[in-house]
Amino acid sequence: MGSQLLKGKKGIIFGALDSKSIAWKVAELAYEAGAEFTLSNTPTAIRFGELNELSKKCNAEVIPADATNVQDLMHVFERSMEVLGGKVDFVLHSIGMSLNVRKKRVYSDLEYSYLNKTLDISAISFHKMLQVAYKLDAINEWGSVVALSYIAAQRVLYGYNDMADAKALLESIARSFGYIYGRDRKVRVNTVSQSPTITTAGSGVKGISGLIDFTERMSPLGNADAEDCANYCVALFSDLTRKVTMQNLYHDGGFSSMGMSLKAMAMYNKSLEIEMDQEELEALD
Amino acid sequence: MGSQLLKGKKGIIFGALDSKSIAWKVAELAYEAGAEFTLSNTPTAIRFGELNELSKKCNAEVIPADATNVQDLMHVFERSMEVLGGKVDFVLHSIGMSLNVRKKRVYSDLEYSYLNKTLDISAISFHKMLQVAYKLDAINEWGSVVALSYIAAQRVLYGYNDMADAKALLESIARSFGYIYGRDRKVRVNTVSQSPTITTAGSGVKGISGLIDFTERMSPLGNADAEDCANYCVALFSDLTRKVTMQNLYHDGGFSSMGMSLKAMAMYNKSLEIEMDQEELEALD
Amino acid sequence: MGSQLLKGKKGIIFGALDSKSIAWKVAELAYEAGAEFTLSNTPTAIRFGELNELSKKCNAEVIPADATNVQDLMHVFERSMEVLGGKVDFVLHSIGMSLNVRKKRVYSDLEYSYLNKTLDISAISFHKMLQVAYKLDAINEWGSVVALSYIAAQRVLYGYNDMADAKALLESIARSFGYIYGRDRKVRVNTVSQSPTITTAGSGVKGISGLIDFTERMSPLGNADAEDCANYCVALFSDLTRKVTMQNLYHDGGFSSMGMSLKAMAMYNKSLEIEMDQEELEALD
Amino acid sequence: MGSQLLKGKKGIIFGALDSKSIAWKVAELAYEAGAEFTLSNTPTAIRFGELNELSKKCNAEVIPADATNVQDLMHVFERSMEVLGGKVDFVLHSIGMSLNVRKKRVYSDLEYSYLNKTLDISAISFHKMLQVAYKLDAINEWGSVVALSYIAAQRVLYGYNDMADAKALLESIARSFGYIYGRDRKVRVNTVSQSPTITTAGSGVKGISGLIDFTERMSPLGNADAEDCANYCVALFSDLTRKVTMQNLYHDGGFSSMGMSLKAMAMYNKSLEIEMDQEELEALD
Repeated sequence: MGSQLLKGKKGIIFGALDSKSIAWKVAELAYEAGAEFTLSNTPTAIRFGELNELSKKCNAEVIPADATNVQDLMHVFERSMEVLGGKVDFVLHSIGMSLNVRKKRVYSDLEYSYLNKTLDISAISFHKMLQVAYKLDAINEWGSVVALSYIAAQRVLYGYNDMADAKALLESIARSFGYIYGRDRKVRVNTVSQSPTITTAGSGVKGISGLIDFTERMSPLGNADAEDCANYCVALFSDLTRKVTMQNLYHDGGFSSMGMSLKAMAMYNKSLEIEMDQEELEALD
Repeated sequence: MGSQLLKGKKGIIFGALDSKSIAWKVAELAYEAGAEFTLSNTPTAIRFGELNELSKKCNAEVIPADATNVQDLMHVFERSMEVLGGKVDFVLHSIGMSLNVRKKRVYSDLEYSYLNKTLDISAISFHKMLQVAYKLDAINEWGSVVALSYIAAQRVLYGYNDMADAKALLESIARSFGYIYGRDRKVRVNTVSQSPTITTAGSGVKGISGLIDFTERMSPLGNADAEDCANYCVALFSDLTRKVTMQNLYHDGGFSSMGMSLKAMAMYNKSLEIEMDQEELEALD
Repeated sequence: MGSQLLKGKKGIIFGALDSKSIAWKVAELAYEAGAEFTLSNTPTAIRFGELNELSKKCNAEVIPADATNVQDLMHVFERSMEVLGGKVDFVLHSIGMSLNVRKKRVYSDLEYSYLNKTLDISAISFHKMLQVAYKLDAINEWGSVVALSYIAAQRVLYGYNDMADAKALLESIARSFGYIYGRDRKVRVNTVSQSPTITTAGSGVKGISGLIDFTERMSPLGNADAEDCANYCVALFSDLTRKVTMQNLYHDGGFSSMGMSLKAMAMYNKSLEIEMDQEELEALD
Repeated sequence: MGSQLLKGKKGIIFGALDSKSIAWKVAELAYEAGAEFTLSNTPTAIRFGELNELSKKCNAEVIPADATNVQDLMHVFERSMEVLGGKVDFVLHSIGMSLNVRKKRVYSDLEYSYLNKTLDISAISFHKMLQVAYKLDAINEWGSVVALSYIAAQRVLYGYNDMADAKALLESIARSFGYIYGRDRKVRVNTVSQSPTITTAGSGVKGISGLIDFTERMSPLGNADAEDCANYCVALFSDLTRKVTMQNLYHDGGFSSMGMSLKAMAMYNKSLEIEMDQEELEALD
């Protein structure tokens, strides 16, 4: 679809695990659009995921790295420049994890060492990535850096827990570093606030299917899926969006601008009516 | 509750109709808090409402006026200064009406003469009020002007129709005039974005009870009612909030910062499960 | 640059006047990207502008219309579908005008008949356009409608006057109709909030050069110009952005996310220091 | 001014250092308004500050605590309930510190161990405070918790460095915990986004005086000072604002809603004109 829109552009894509990953789709579409890039994820993710399949498909070297480790990140950028023959033009950060969520520690009973890890993996890693790239001068002028975020950064969704705070921090880092990197090197930094998306990492979240039904009915265009998101990332990496920076861009079929849709209200009202019928019945007792 | 917080303050309250009106509650609580004020509404509203009762209760003169008419508004401010013995300290704008809503013209089939009326009555009247007050120099330094708004100005709620656009315009006027009036006379101008509230004017809106159940379950503190709103207005008219201006202040039990609550999701899921059961049953056919 | 990204797409571009217009640049780049379209503006603008030149360059028919006139708009859509051989895929609204600004009526002394005209031309015309298109079913599924806006809709800029309120109304209409048009026809509606741009229409605004210097120094990537904006519009018309709707998208080199930049502060401080020196000198008297 | 508005209310005020502190002013005005409370700060701050003076003035016990230490926080809440004879009604969090700022590590060269400290002291301490209070059930129904924030959470101000990210995290925590605490105990949680204020802690920030001149000229009501802020906090602790929660409330004389004011532009233009004159002079060489 992107019709060679990224021809000649080089990049690094962090966070692809398997074919359900948004980062995976970004890689596929960036490849179709003519880009060359490297792929990075943790050694564990590489072992359990299917990154080698993607690597072959896109002719992209896999560079293992713990994104919370500055040395590892330096290696990713240095190796990428070596492999790709020069500075990169785009970077995708699609990384997030909460031990509090995994271990079912609710938000009023957080384990603080887990919270520190959540923030380090899901948000501070983005600062480290940018600081490493900045110090190595690894991104070309008019390059584009995108991190994936979620509306929980602005509005509370029960169960999203400390990942909400991590996303708020991530978006703040995008703004703060976007100023520096834009001013000094003409590099733009944005976050994409994506519809809830069923990925291998996200599918374990309790109650996710109900939420996804709700957001689907709330969003006039329906939820954006991983492929939609990848297309949007291609646009954001391209030269068509060179003056967009320090923004959190909702990519969600309109959800973020909805208060209540007819479809979601209709579904909600069904149970409301049932509830009321029950109350009436009980009142008759 | 306000413990004479508004002692010595004079004001004008636009838009009280009957005891369900937010403006009515504001009048009652402002009176309790020691304020003196006049009341204004259209001749029709005065005829059909119960404003004279409020007038007696609060010892407040009623001044009929069409708030879209500059001459009428001049009269309200001039007469108020006469009656109250000087400039006023606070003004409440609680005025809104849409003929498109009343006549069931949906948003993709608006009658444009009605839209003009919606905007004139619900938003431009606020500019006229401020411009008249400014020209007459009718508000004391550190005075406070509040208009009531609704979150439809930011997020679409089906059925709210062109009132959403009117509220967006109203909030913009608050900012635009807030700059001028603050800079030149130290008067602050804000909007309060209130929970959906059952009033005589609002009770006819189709589907309002389902929406109110939803916002009640979404808001961690529940919907704010008319009395809560009146208390907040007292705070905003008082000297405790002198440096707050050009703001749209959500007064909604937390609704505006919610994406999804446990309680609303539980209710929503009930019908979802029923729907799914039905689909399964149908799939068995 | 768009590499045939809009190949096969048809559209209507409202508001090109001369080669400084953003709409003019959008037409040029959409044409390069493979789109076919018609052009529309008022008879007066056509007479005084250079639209015929653009028409030849892009092989695009010019259809005169007053965008506040529903009949005229119906003609534009009907004629466009005739000329282009089917429904359209994109529409650009780049229309705005304030008689209060032109006639130097300040915001605390608005002429209300002018304000009505400002709102009708700059905002309600967008609703009329959408309602006409909706009723004629003139836009294909996954079509894209964009209107140009300005950050004055959110933050007060002295001298921008009632255009600020018009832009707030315009953005609200984009959300309100975006819900309907997305839900019913999968058409997306967004506004682009563009850097201040020197156009023939805008160049008369008093103090514009100082403001543009300030926003240039505040924005880490500098102001976005008309060509940048046109590139962004191409991205928004393309299939890469199909799930983005009801958004106000800042295209401003980062300005909207800045509180204060080093460069703008340095410039500001210069006069501050001079001012302070003068005060010291005066203090010596 | 508060006329016994907080009569019967009990609270805890964290972060008063000396008479320039906002928290100090809050203590003074809360005392005048009839509240009883305890004061807390770090042992170091207590040693170097003047908290004992405030303690006497307000008849308030000082409880030393490191707000990043859960045990210390438990002690503060337990001791406060003992001293005050029951649960508290309000809590103020006025705590922030960045070693990166102090040690002049710029944002593109952060020391990550310092960043962790910035976040722990300035933001996570707020979660710890809330979690401790929640677990001890130390806050009465309809209690009010306020943390002080700054607009750097939304817009980049050069030099504010990683404190911007800390404030974004702080505001997210207020929303996230505000949901839980509101839902379960009817306690509200908000942040106040205050004008830049000269305090002993803040006065060392480089370039602060230029910024304060700018925000003073930008804000139609001028900057809000510590006393203004304290008045606002009294309103937020009072029963007048019981349905306001999960909000970030700008208390800044209108700054947050300004794009450009006449006064700031006039000052800016002075140096612009001088600069231009110099360029002309140089061009003459």
